[in-house]
Amino acid sequence: MGQLLKVQNFTISSDGIAAGENQSLENPFGTDIDPQKLFTWAGATASWPNRTDPGGSRGLDDYFTRDFSRNIGAEIMGRNKFGPQRGPWEDHEWQGWWGDEPPFHTPVFVLTHHPRPSFTLSDTTFHFVGGEPAEVLERAKEAAQGKDVRLGGGVTTIREFLEAGLVDTLHVVVNPVKIGEGLRLWDAPEDLEDRYHHEAVPSASGVTHHIFWRD
Amino acid sequence: MGQLLKVQNFTISSDGIAAGENQSLENPFGTDIDPQKLFTWAGATASWPNRTDPGGSRGLDDYFTRDFSRNIGAEIMGRNKFGPQRGPWEDHEWQGWWGDEPPFHTPVFVLTHHPRPSFTLSDTTFHFVGGEPAEVLERAKEAAQGKDVRLGGGVTTIREFLEAGLVDTLHVVVNPVKIGEGLRLWDAPEDLEDRYHHEAVPSASGVTHHIFWRD
Repeated sequence: MGQLLKVQNFTISSDGIAAGENQSLENPFGTDIDPQKLFTWAGATASWPNRTDPGGSRGLDDYFTRDFSRNIGAEIMGRNKFGPQRGPWEDHEWQGWWGDEPPFHTPVFVLTHHPRPSFTLSDTTFHFVGGEPAEVLERAKEAAQGKDVRLGGGVTTIREFLEAGLVDTLHVVVNPVKIGEGLRLWDAPEDLEDRYHHEAVPSASGVTHHIFWRD
Repeated sequence: MGQLLKVQNFTISSDGIAAGENQSLENPFGTDIDPQKLFTWAGATASWPNRTDPGGSRGLDDYFTRDFSRNIGAEIMGRNKFGPQRGPWEDHEWQGWWGDEPPFHTPVFVLTHHPRPSFTLSDTTFHFVGGEPAEVLERAKEAAQGKDVRLGGGVTTIREFLEAGLVDTLHVVVNPVKIGEGLRLWDAPEDLEDRYHHEAVPSASGVTHHIFWRD
Protein backbone atom coordinates (compact mmCIF):
# COMPACT_ATOMS: atom_id res chain seq x y z
CA MET A 1 0.00 0.00 0.00
CA GLY A 2 3.03 2.28 0.20
CA GLN A 3 2.77 5.45 2.28
CA LEU A 4 -0.30 5.67 4.49
CA LEU A 5 -2.28 8.70 5.68
CA LYS A 6 -3.03 7.99 9.35
CA VAL A 7 -5.15 9.55 12.09
CA GLN A 8 -3.55 8.58 15.42
CA ASN A 9 -4.56 8.96 19.06
CA PHE A 10 -7.29 11.43 18.09
CA THR A 11 -9.30 11.77 21.28
CA ILE A 12 -12.98 12.70 21.44
CA SER A 13 -15.82 12.64 23.95
CA SER A 14 -18.53 9.99 24.06
CA ASP A 15 -20.70 12.37 22.05
CA GLY A 16 -18.06 12.65 19.33
CA ILE A 17 -16.58 16.04 20.18
CA ALA A 18 -12.85 16.85 19.94
CA ALA A 19 -12.89 20.60 20.48
CA GLY A 20 -15.33 23.05 21.97
CA GLU A 21 -16.43 26.43 20.75
CA ASN A 22 -14.71 29.80 21.40
CA GLN A 23 -11.15 28.67 20.69
CA SER A 24 -8.65 31.25 21.92
CA LEU A 25 -5.04 31.61 23.02
CA GLU A 26 -6.09 30.79 26.56
CA ASN A 27 -8.35 27.89 25.55
CA PRO A 28 -6.82 25.96 22.64
CA PHE A 29 -9.61 23.39 22.79
CA GLY A 30 -12.36 25.98 23.26
CA THR A 31 -14.21 26.90 26.41
CA ASP A 32 -16.23 23.67 26.74
CA ILE A 33 -13.28 21.28 26.97
CA ASP A 34 -10.66 20.63 29.58
CA PRO A 35 -7.91 18.98 27.49
CA GLN A 36 -6.24 17.71 30.66
CA LYS A 37 -9.31 15.61 31.29
CA LEU A 38 -9.73 14.45 27.70
CA PHE A 39 -6.12 13.21 27.44
CA THR A 40 -5.72 11.66 30.90
CA TRP A 41 -5.51 8.22 29.26
CA ALA A 42 -2.35 9.22 27.35
CA GLY A 43 -0.75 11.24 30.12
CA ALA A 44 -0.88 8.21 32.42
CA THR A 45 1.26 6.05 30.13
CA ALA A 46 5.00 5.41 30.43
CA SER A 47 5.65 6.57 26.84
CA TRP A 48 3.86 9.94 27.11
CA PRO A 49 6.48 12.35 25.70
CA ASN A 50 5.84 15.10 28.28
CA ARG A 51 6.27 12.73 31.23
CA THR A 52 8.64 14.14 33.83
CA ASP A 53 8.66 11.29 36.37
CA PRO A 54 9.80 7.74 35.52
CA GLY A 55 6.46 6.02 36.26
CA GLY A 56 3.48 5.42 34.01
CA SER A 57 1.48 2.42 32.86
CA ARG A 58 2.74 -0.01 30.22
CA GLY A 59 -0.62 -1.56 29.45
CA LEU A 60 -2.73 -1.31 26.30
CA ASP A 61 -2.85 2.52 26.22
CA ASP A 62 0.93 2.67 26.19
CA TYR A 63 1.08 0.72 22.91
CA PHE A 64 -0.91 3.51 21.28
CA THR A 65 1.14 6.29 22.87
CA ARG A 66 4.42 4.79 21.71
CA ASP A 67 3.12 4.01 18.23
CA PHE A 68 2.37 7.71 17.63
CA SER A 69 5.71 8.57 15.99
CA ARG A 70 6.49 5.19 14.47
CA ASN A 71 7.39 5.54 10.77
CA ILE A 72 5.80 9.01 10.54
CA GLY A 73 7.62 11.39 8.18
CA ALA A 74 5.25 14.37 8.02
CA GLU A 75 2.03 15.76 9.55
CA ILE A 76 -0.88 17.62 8.02
CA MET A 77 -2.95 19.79 10.38
CA GLY A 78 -5.77 22.27 10.08
CA ARG A 79 -5.15 25.92 10.83
CA ASN A 80 -7.15 25.74 14.06
CA LYS A 81 -4.88 23.05 15.43
CA PHE A 82 -1.95 25.39 14.79
CA GLY A 83 -3.51 28.46 16.39
CA PRO A 84 -6.65 30.45 17.18
CA GLN A 85 -6.07 33.22 14.62
CA ARG A 86 -8.45 33.69 11.69
CA GLY A 87 -7.89 35.59 8.42
CA PRO A 88 -4.49 36.84 7.21
CA TRP A 89 -1.47 36.07 9.42
CA GLU A 90 -0.70 39.27 11.28
CA ASP A 91 1.55 38.17 14.12
CA HIS A 92 4.49 36.11 12.89
CA GLU A 93 5.79 35.95 16.46
CA TRP A 94 3.08 33.36 17.15
CA GLN A 95 4.67 30.02 16.28
CA GLY A 96 2.09 27.54 17.55
CA TRP A 97 1.16 26.22 20.99
CA TRP A 98 4.14 24.00 21.47
CA GLY A 99 7.08 26.20 22.47
CA ASP A 100 10.64 25.74 21.18
CA GLU A 101 10.41 21.93 20.96
CA PRO A 102 7.24 20.99 19.08
CA PRO A 103 6.33 17.31 19.46
CA PHE A 104 6.25 16.59 15.71
CA HIS A 105 9.94 16.23 14.74
CA THR A 106 8.99 16.24 11.04
CA PRO A 107 7.76 18.71 8.43
CA VAL A 108 4.22 19.90 9.31
CA PHE A 109 1.82 21.21 6.67
CA VAL A 110 -0.68 23.72 8.07
CA LEU A 111 -3.78 24.20 5.91
CA THR A 112 -4.55 27.87 5.28
CA HIS A 113 -5.74 30.13 2.49
CA HIS A 114 -3.37 32.84 3.71
CA PRO A 115 0.32 32.81 2.76
CA ARG A 116 2.99 32.73 5.40
CA PRO A 117 6.69 31.86 5.18
CA SER A 118 7.84 28.47 6.51
CA PHE A 119 9.82 28.41 9.74
CA THR A 120 11.72 25.83 11.78
CA LEU A 121 11.63 25.17 15.53
CA SER A 122 14.10 22.50 16.64
CA ASP A 123 13.51 19.51 14.31
CA THR A 124 10.01 20.58 13.21
CA THR A 125 9.44 22.77 10.12
CA PHE A 126 6.02 24.34 9.60
CA HIS A 127 4.83 24.99 6.03
CA PHE A 128 1.63 26.94 5.30
CA VAL A 129 -0.21 25.55 2.33
CA GLY A 130 -3.47 25.99 0.43
CA GLY A 131 -5.05 23.81 -2.24
CA GLU A 132 -7.07 20.62 -2.39
CA PRO A 133 -6.52 17.85 0.20
CA ALA A 134 -5.09 15.54 -2.48
CA GLU A 135 -2.49 18.16 -3.48
CA VAL A 136 -1.47 18.80 0.12
CA LEU A 137 -1.19 15.05 0.73
CA GLU A 138 1.04 14.75 -2.33
CA ARG A 139 3.41 17.38 -0.92
CA ALA A 140 3.39 15.82 2.55
CA LYS A 141 4.16 12.36 1.15
CA GLU A 142 7.09 13.76 -0.77
CA ALA A 143 8.39 15.46 2.39
CA ALA A 144 7.91 12.21 4.36
CA GLN A 145 10.48 10.46 2.14
CA GLY A 146 8.81 7.08 2.05
CA LYS A 147 7.42 7.17 5.58
CA ASP A 148 3.74 7.57 6.48
CA VAL A 149 1.89 10.87 6.95
CA ARG A 150 -0.07 11.70 10.11
CA LEU A 151 -3.32 13.61 9.77
CA GLY A 152 -3.25 15.58 13.02
CA GLY A 153 -6.74 17.07 13.04
CA GLY A 154 -8.82 18.86 14.06
CA VAL A 155 -12.26 17.54 13.32
CA THR A 156 -12.87 19.75 10.27
CA THR A 157 -9.63 18.64 8.65
CA ILE A 158 -10.22 14.95 9.33
CA ARG A 159 -13.74 15.14 7.93
CA GLU A 160 -12.46 16.92 4.81
CA PHE A 161 -9.81 14.26 4.12
CA LEU A 162 -12.28 11.45 4.89
CA GLU A 163 -14.72 12.93 2.40
CA ALA A 164 -11.98 13.04 -0.21
CA GLY A 165 -11.31 9.33 0.44
CA LEU A 166 -7.69 9.98 1.39
CA VAL A 167 -7.47 8.53 4.92
CA ASP A 168 -6.02 4.99 5.11
CA THR A 169 -6.18 4.26 8.85
CA LEU A 170 -7.78 5.94 11.87
CA HIS A 171 -7.20 5.44 15.55
CA VAL A 172 -9.80 7.40 17.51
CA VAL A 173 -9.96 7.28 21.31
CA VAL A 174 -13.37 7.75 22.86
CA ASN A 175 -13.28 9.11 26.39
CA PRO A 176 -16.46 8.45 28.40
CA VAL A 177 -17.10 12.13 29.12
CA LYS A 178 -19.96 14.04 27.53
CA ILE A 179 -19.38 17.57 26.24
CA GLY A 180 -22.58 18.60 24.46
CA GLU A 181 -21.49 21.50 22.27
CA GLY A 182 -18.58 21.61 19.87
CA LEU A 183 -17.02 20.20 16.74
CA ARG A 184 -18.26 16.69 16.17
CA LEU A 185 -16.24 13.98 14.39
CA TRP A 186 -19.17 11.60 13.97
CA ASP A 187 -22.57 10.63 15.31
CA ALA A 188 -21.21 7.15 16.05
CA PRO A 189 -18.12 5.13 15.09
CA GLU A 190 -20.35 2.90 12.97
CA ASP A 191 -20.67 5.84 10.53
CA LEU A 192 -17.35 4.74 9.01
CA GLU A 193 -18.10 1.02 8.69
CA ASP A 194 -19.27 1.31 5.08
CA ARG A 195 -15.70 2.21 4.11
CA TYR A 196 -13.48 0.75 6.82
CA HIS A 197 -12.85 -2.35 8.88
CA HIS A 198 -13.55 -1.42 12.48
CA GLU A 199 -12.39 -2.79 15.82
CA ALA A 200 -13.46 -1.30 19.16
CA VAL A 201 -11.08 -2.16 22.01
CA PRO A 202 -11.99 -1.12 25.56
CA SER A 203 -9.06 -0.21 27.78
CA ALA A 204 -8.71 -0.64 31.54
CA SER A 205 -8.31 3.16 31.78
CA GLY A 206 -11.94 3.64 30.74
CA VAL A 207 -11.40 4.86 27.18
CA THR A 208 -12.23 2.79 24.10
CA HIS A 209 -9.79 2.59 21.21
CA HIS A 210 -11.49 2.56 17.82
CA ILE A 211 -9.26 1.28 15.02
CA PHE A 212 -10.23 1.63 11.36
CA TRP A 213 -8.40 0.50 8.23
CA ARG A 214 -9.22 -0.26 4.65
CA ASP A 215 -7.90 -2.90 2.26
CA MET B 1 13.65 2.69 34.46
CA GLY B 2 16.37 2.67 31.80
CA GLN B 3 16.76 -0.44 29.66
CA LEU B 4 13.94 -2.97 29.97
CA LEU B 5 13.96 -6.74 29.61
CA LYS B 6 10.82 -7.55 27.60
CA VAL B 7 8.93 -10.66 26.57
CA GLN B 8 7.03 -9.83 23.38
CA ASN B 9 4.41 -11.61 21.29
CA PHE B 10 5.12 -14.87 23.12
CA THR B 11 2.27 -17.11 22.00
CA ILE B 12 0.87 -20.00 24.01
CA SER B 13 -2.18 -22.25 24.02
CA SER B 14 -5.16 -21.83 26.34
CA ASP B 15 -3.56 -24.44 28.59
CA GLY B 16 -0.33 -22.43 28.81
CA ILE B 17 1.85 -24.39 26.39
CA ALA B 18 4.33 -22.79 23.98
CA ALA B 19 6.13 -25.82 22.66
CA GLY B 20 5.38 -29.51 22.50
CA GLU B 21 7.60 -32.45 23.23
CA ASN B 22 10.00 -34.21 20.80
CA GLN B 23 11.56 -31.08 19.33
CA SER B 24 13.52 -31.90 16.18
CA LEU B 25 14.82 -30.33 12.97
CA GLU B 26 11.54 -31.20 11.30
CA ASN B 27 9.38 -30.03 14.21
CA PRO B 28 10.88 -26.92 15.83
CA PHE B 29 7.90 -26.63 18.16
CA GLY B 30 7.74 -30.36 18.93
CA THR B 31 5.32 -32.92 17.61
CA ASP B 32 2.24 -31.70 19.46
CA ILE B 33 2.17 -28.19 18.03
CA ASP B 34 1.44 -26.78 14.61
CA PRO B 35 3.19 -23.39 14.79
CA GLN B 36 1.24 -22.22 11.74
CA LYS B 37 -1.92 -22.55 13.77
CA LEU B 38 -0.50 -21.00 16.95
CA PHE B 39 0.75 -17.88 15.14
CA THR B 40 -2.18 -17.31 12.76
CA TRP B 41 -3.05 -14.13 14.66
CA ALA B 42 0.34 -12.57 13.79
CA GLY B 43 0.56 -13.89 10.25
CA ALA B 44 -2.75 -12.19 9.42
CA THR B 45 -1.48 -8.69 10.25
CA ALA B 46 -0.17 -6.10 7.81
CA SER B 47 3.12 -5.72 9.70
CA TRP B 48 4.03 -9.43 9.79
CA PRO B 49 7.64 -9.42 8.54
CA ASN B 50 7.28 -12.56 6.40
CA ARG B 51 4.22 -11.21 4.57
CA THR B 52 4.57 -11.57 0.81
CA ASP B 53 1.29 -9.99 -0.33
CA PRO B 54 0.32 -6.37 0.44
CA GLY B 55 -2.83 -7.17 2.48
CA GLY B 56 -3.22 -7.89 6.17
CA SER B 57 -5.23 -6.47 9.03
CA ARG B 58 -4.33 -3.20 10.74
CA GLY B 59 -6.42 -3.77 13.85
CA LEU B 60 -5.31 -4.41 17.42
CA ASP B 61 -3.10 -7.41 16.60
CA ASP B 62 -1.10 -5.30 14.17
CA TYR B 63 -0.05 -2.90 16.94
CA PHE B 64 1.62 -5.81 18.71
CA THR B 65 3.25 -7.15 15.55
CA ARG B 66 4.75 -3.79 14.66
CA ASP B 67 5.88 -3.07 18.23
CA PHE B 68 8.04 -6.22 18.20
CA SER B 69 11.25 -4.52 17.04
CA ARG B 70 10.65 -1.07 18.49
CA ASN B 71 13.66 0.09 20.51
CA ILE B 72 15.06 -3.46 20.82
CA GLY B 73 18.85 -3.64 20.78
CA ALA B 74 19.53 -7.30 21.66
CA GLU B 75 17.76 -10.62 22.25
CA ILE B 76 18.37 -13.40 24.75
CA MET B 77 17.09 -16.87 23.82
CA GLY B 78 17.31 -20.37 25.20
CA ARG B 79 19.27 -22.98 23.32
CA ASN B 80 16.11 -24.84 22.31
CA LYS B 81 14.77 -21.76 20.55
CA PHE B 82 18.01 -21.69 18.55
CA GLY B 83 17.99 -25.36 17.61
CA PRO B 84 17.07 -28.95 18.53
CA GLN B 85 20.62 -30.12 19.31
CA ARG B 86 21.60 -31.15 22.84
CA GLY B 87 25.07 -31.46 24.37
CA PRO B 88 28.28 -30.14 22.74
CA TRP B 89 27.90 -28.33 19.40
CA GLU B 90 28.94 -30.81 16.74
CA ASP B 91 27.62 -29.35 13.53
CA HIS B 92 28.67 -25.72 13.05
CA GLU B 93 26.93 -25.71 9.69
CA TRP B 94 23.63 -25.47 11.57
CA GLN B 95 23.03 -21.75 12.05
CA GLY B 96 19.49 -21.66 13.41
CA TRP B 97 16.04 -22.04 11.84
CA TRP B 98 15.91 -18.70 10.13
CA GLY B 99 18.03 -18.91 6.99
CA ASP B 100 20.36 -16.16 5.77
CA GLU B 101 18.18 -13.29 7.04
CA PRO B 102 17.26 -13.98 10.68
CA PRO B 103 14.41 -11.75 11.91
CA PHE B 104 16.36 -10.31 14.87
CA HIS B 105 18.60 -7.62 13.31
CA THR B 106 20.53 -7.29 16.61
CA PRO B 107 23.04 -9.27 18.65
CA VAL B 108 21.41 -12.48 19.97
CA PHE B 109 22.68 -14.25 23.09
CA VAL B 110 21.98 -18.00 23.04
CA LEU B 111 22.12 -19.65 26.47
CA THR B 112 24.25 -22.77 26.48
CA HIS B 113 26.78 -24.54 28.68
CA HIS B 114 28.75 -25.54 25.60
CA PRO B 115 31.17 -23.12 23.94
CA ARG B 116 30.75 -22.15 20.32
CA PRO B 117 32.24 -19.25 18.33
CA SER B 118 29.99 -16.30 17.49
CA PHE B 119 28.86 -15.88 13.88
CA THR B 120 26.99 -13.29 11.88
CA LEU B 121 24.15 -13.74 9.38
CA SER B 122 23.11 -10.50 7.68
CA ASP B 123 22.57 -7.97 10.51
CA THR B 124 22.16 -10.58 13.27
CA THR B 125 25.14 -11.85 15.30
CA PHE B 126 24.70 -14.95 17.48
CA HIS B 127 26.78 -15.26 20.66
CA PHE B 128 26.80 -18.45 22.75
CA VAL B 129 26.98 -17.74 26.45
CA GLY B 130 26.82 -19.51 29.80
CA GLY B 131 26.48 -18.09 33.28
CA GLU B 132 23.72 -16.77 35.50
CA PRO B 133 20.71 -14.95 33.99
CA ALA B 134 21.81 -11.67 35.60
CA GLU B 135 25.26 -11.92 33.99
CA VAL B 136 23.84 -12.70 30.56
CA LEU B 137 21.40 -9.80 30.89
CA GLU B 138 24.29 -7.50 31.75
CA ARG B 139 26.10 -8.50 28.55
CA ALA B 140 22.95 -8.16 26.45
CA LYS B 141 22.22 -4.69 27.86
CA GLU B 142 25.72 -3.57 27.01
CA ALA B 143 25.35 -4.90 23.47
CA ALA B 144 21.95 -3.16 23.16
CA GLN B 145 23.62 0.25 23.56
CA GLY B 146 20.87 1.88 25.57
CA LYS B 147 17.96 0.14 23.86
CA ASP B 148 15.78 -2.56 25.46
CA VAL B 149 16.49 -6.30 25.46
CA ARG B 150 13.99 -8.87 24.22
CA LEU B 151 13.69 -12.17 26.07
CA GLY B 152 12.80 -14.43 23.16
CA GLY B 153 11.91 -17.66 24.98
CA GLY B 154 11.26 -20.51 25.14
CA VAL B 155 9.26 -21.32 28.22
CA THR B 156 12.20 -22.62 30.26
CA THR B 157 14.21 -19.47 29.64
CA ILE B 158 11.33 -17.12 30.46
CA ARG B 159 10.60 -18.99 33.69
CA GLU B 160 14.25 -18.85 34.67
CA PHE B 161 14.47 -15.08 34.15
CA LEU B 162 11.10 -14.55 35.88
CA GLU B 163 12.35 -16.50 38.88
CA ALA B 164 15.47 -14.33 39.00
CA GLY B 165 13.21 -11.23 39.04
CA LEU B 166 14.78 -9.84 35.85
CA VAL B 167 11.78 -9.46 33.53
CA ASP B 168 10.31 -5.93 33.34
CA THR B 169 7.40 -6.39 30.91
CA LEU B 170 5.66 -9.38 29.33
CA HIS B 171 3.28 -9.57 26.41
CA VAL B 172 1.88 -13.08 26.16
CA VAL B 173 -0.70 -14.04 23.53
CA VAL B 174 -3.13 -16.77 24.47
CA ASN B 175 -4.55 -18.65 21.51
CA PRO B 176 -7.80 -20.51 22.24
CA VAL B 177 -6.44 -23.88 21.21
CA LYS B 178 -5.73 -26.65 23.70
CA ILE B 179 -2.56 -28.72 23.38
CA GLY B 180 -2.42 -30.93 26.47
CA GLU B 181 1.24 -32.00 26.61
CA GLY B 182 4.29 -29.78 26.47
CA LEU B 183 6.26 -27.02 28.12
CA ARG B 184 3.94 -24.88 30.20
CA LEU B 185 4.52 -21.16 30.89
CA TRP B 186 1.93 -20.95 33.66
CA ASP B 187 -1.18 -22.51 35.11
CA ALA B 188 -3.02 -19.20 34.58
CA PRO B 189 -2.04 -15.58 33.81
CA GLU B 190 -3.11 -14.65 37.34
CA ASP B 191 0.03 -16.50 38.57
CA LEU B 192 2.01 -13.33 37.83
CA GLU B 193 -0.33 -10.83 39.48
CA ASP B 194 1.58 -10.84 42.77
CA ARG B 195 4.50 -9.21 40.98
CA TYR B 196 3.01 -7.45 37.94
CA HIS B 197 0.20 -5.19 36.83
CA HIS B 198 -1.92 -7.21 34.41
CA GLU B 199 -4.28 -6.30 31.59
CA ALA B 200 -6.10 -8.91 29.49
CA VAL B 201 -7.22 -7.56 26.11
CA PRO B 202 -9.34 -9.79 23.86
CA SER B 203 -8.78 -9.34 20.13
CA ALA B 204 -11.27 -9.73 17.27
CA SER B 205 -9.00 -12.49 15.89
CA GLY B 206 -9.87 -14.71 18.85
CA VAL B 207 -6.60 -14.46 20.79
CA THR B 208 -6.24 -12.58 24.07
CA HIS B 209 -3.29 -10.28 24.66
CA HIS B 210 -1.98 -10.42 28.23
CA ILE B 211 0.17 -7.43 29.16
CA PHE B 212 2.24 -7.35 32.35
CA TRP B 213 4.49 -4.63 33.72
CA ARG B 214 5.93 -3.65 37.05
CA ASP B 215 6.58 -0.25 38.61
